[in-house]
Amino acid sequence: MCSSPVTMMCFPRLSRVAVCGGTHGNELSGVYLVRELLKAEKKVKKKKEEEDEEPVSVQLVLSNPRAMQQCRRYVDTDLNRCFTHAALNGSPSDSDPYEMIRSRELNAMLGPKGSPKAMDLVCDLHNTTANMGLCFIAYSDSDWVCLHLFRHLQARQYTQRIPDIPMRYIHFNVARKESYSLDSVGKHGFAMEIGPQPHGVVRSNIYTAMKVGVQHVLEWVHFFNSGTVFEGGLVEVFTMVKHIDYPRDKETHNITAAIHPQLQDRDFCLLRPEDALFQTFSGETLRYKGKEPLYPFFVNECAYYEKGIALSLARKRQVMIPSIRVQTEQEQQANERGFKSEEEE
Amino acid sequence: MCSSPVTMMCFPRLSRVAVCGGTHGNELSGVYLVRELLKAEKKVKKKKEEEDEEPVSVQLVLSNPRAMQQCRRYVDTDLNRCFTHAALNGSPSDSDPYEMIRSRELNAMLGPKGSPKAMDLVCDLHNTTANMGLCFIAYSDSDWVCLHLFRHLQARQYTQRIPDIPMRYIHFNVARKESYSLDSVGKHGFAMEIGPQPHGVVRSNIYTAMKVGVQHVLEWVHFFNSGTVFEGGLVEVFTMVKHIDYPRDKETHNITAAIHPQLQDRDFCLLRPEDALFQTFSGETLRYKGKEPLYPFFVNECAYYEKGIALSLARKRQVMIPSIRVQTEQEQQANERGFKSEEEE
Repeated sequence: MCSSPVTMMCFPRLSRVAVCGGTHGNELSGVYLVRELLKAEKKVKKKKEEEDEEPVSVQLVLSNPRAMQQCRRYVDTDLNRCFTHAALNGSPSDSDPYEMIRSRELNAMLGPKGSPKAMDLVCDLHNTTANMGLCFIAYSDSDWVCLHLFRHLQARQYTQRIPDIPMRYIHFNVARKESYSLDSVGKHGFAMEIGPQPHGVVRSNIYTAMKVGVQHVLEWVHFFNSGTVFEGGLVEVFTMVKHIDYPRDKETHNITAAIHPQLQDRDFCLLRPEDALFQTFSGETLRYKGKEPLYPFFVNECAYYEKGIALSLARKRQVMIPSIRVQTEQEQQANERGFKSEEEE
Repeated sequence: MCSSPVTMMCFPRLSRVAVCGGTHGNELSGVYLVRELLKAEKKVKKKKEEEDEEPVSVQLVLSNPRAMQQCRRYVDTDLNRCFTHAALNGSPSDSDPYEMIRSRELNAMLGPKGSPKAMDLVCDLHNTTANMGLCFIAYSDSDWVCLHLFRHLQARQYTQRIPDIPMRYIHFNVARKESYSLDSVGKHGFAMEIGPQPHGVVRSNIYTAMKVGVQHVLEWVHFFNSGTVFEGGLVEVFTMVKHIDYPRDKETHNITAAIHPQLQDRDFCLLRPEDALFQTFSGETLRYKGKEPLYPFFVNECAYYEKGIALSLARKRQVMIPSIRVQTEQEQQANERGFKSEEEE
C-alpha cells in the first residue's frame, strides 16, 4: 500500500480477475452464468485477437465439473472447505477425496494462495435456499477493494441498473490461514451468494440478478484500473457471531423441528430474545433464548442440515471505509521494488 | 359395486389404509410427517391394546430408506416409476437396481397390486419445488372415493380447518396396467403433492399443510366407514395433456433457458398462445407456440430437469361425481359372494 493519508488509499491494478461457478455443483445460477460467459468469450475471442490486448484478463472457471455433472453439491467432500493453508499444503495421497485433488488444481490455476502470483480478485458464485437476496461473503471487514465493490453494486441499484434485490455484506471473522473457501485463493476475494433458489433449480430472476451483479463487478474493476477515485464512507457490515442447530433426537440425530413460520424467509430481520425460532413436528413453538438481539441469515439453507446449522446470527455494524484509487505507475514500481527487497531480506 | 342408481353409489369399507412418505428421499415433509406419526403410534399402541381394535388400520410406510439416508430422490432409479405391471412381475435378478427390489417389497406389503389383498387406500406423500399448493394426483377421473376425499379437504378449507393453500385434483390419463407410482398399488390411491418446497428442506408451513391434509383424509375415511352419505356434485379436474422440455444445446444437451419470470410460480394460471414461456440465458424471451390455452403445472420442478420436463400442461374440466356411501354388511357379503363365484369361473 502507498503512503497516502488514511482517507485515501491506493492499491495495485486488478489485472487478473477470476469468476467461478459450480463450486457447488447443484447451485445452478453460477453454473449457467459461467457457461454463458464462456460461450460469449469464445465468440469475441477471435475479434479480440486482432485488437489490442484486454486491460483486464477475466478467467472463467467451472470449479467442480464432476459435482455439476451429477447435479450434487459435491462428490466426496465440500470443495468450498478445502482451501485452508493446511489442506492445500498437505502431502497428496492416492486416497484423497476428489475435491481435495480439485482444490489443489484450482490453487495452482488461481493461486498459489498467499503468493504474488495469485489472482488479484476471485469472485465465486453461489446460491442459497435462504431468502438472503444478494450477499457478498468475505473474511475481512477491512478489504477496501471488496467493500468498495459492494458499495458500487448498491449504488447501481439506487440508479436501477440492478434488479430490485436486497444486498448485504457478510463478514466471517476467520484468520487468513484458516480461511477455507475458493475465493480465499485470490489477493482479494468474496463469494456472491444469491437466494432464494432451490438447489438443482435455476430461477430466471435469480440468474439475472447474478448476471447483472457480475457485470457490475467487472465494470467497477474497469473504472478502478482506469484511475477513478472512489469516495469513502460508511458501509453496513454483518459480522457472523454464531450458528444455531436444529433440535435433534438424541438417539437418531434426526431433526425434530423446522424453522418457525414466523422466522422462515426473514433473513436479516432482527431476532429478539423470546422470538419464535422453531416449530417442532408435533406443533410446539421453541423460542430464541439468546440474550442479545441478532440478525439471522442462512435461515433454512438446504446444504447446512448436514453441517448442523439451522441458521446463523450476525451483529450489524457500520464500517468507515477510506477513499481508494489505483496506484500510479511510479507508485506500483516503488511498491514492487519494496516487495523484492523484502523477499531478499 | 352395488346396483344403486347413478346418483348414489356404494363402496366396500376402507378397512386398510397406507400413508407413505420418503418415496423420494429428499422430499422431506412426508419423511418427517411419517416419522412423527410413527412416534405417535408407538405412544398410543400400548393404550390401544387394552381397548377395542381400531376400526381402520393405518399402515405408515417409509418407502425408500436408503434414499432418505442420503437425502436424495433415489439411489439407483426413481422408485415412483417402478410399480408398472411389467416391472412388478418381471423375474428378479441380482443386478436389479435397489429401487426395483424395494418396489417388489412394497408391493408385497401393500398389494399385490390389482389383487383383493391390496390396501383399500394408498396415500403417498410428495413435495415439489413448483408453486402447486396441495394437489391430489391420480390416474382416474372416475375414482369416486379419491374425488370425494379431495372434495372433503376442499370443504374443510372453507371452514378454515385447513391452512390457506390452494387445492387441485390432477388426473394422469394412464391405463391401470401402465400406472407406475406407489399409490397405484392400492385399490384406491393418490399422491398428495405439496409445494413450493426445495428438496432437502422442510418448511414449516408446507409440513403443517401436509399434516392437516392427512388428518382430514383419515377423518373422511372414518366418516365414510361410519355410514355418512357424501353428496355428489361437480369437481374441477385438471387432466394432463402434455409436457414441455427446456430448450437445450444440441451438442451438450444442457438447458439454454430458464422458465420465464412471467410464468415462474404461476402454476394453474392459464397459459395462452404467445405468452412468455422461457427466458434464454442470453436474455431472449421464448413464447408458447401451442394453439390451445392450457393450465401449466410442475413449473420448474427440480427433479424433472433430468426427465426433460420444464412444465406440464393440463385441460380443466368439471366432473360430475355421484353421491356415495359405504356398503351395508348385507351388500358387502353379496359382493364377496359375487367375487368368489367370479374367481371360481
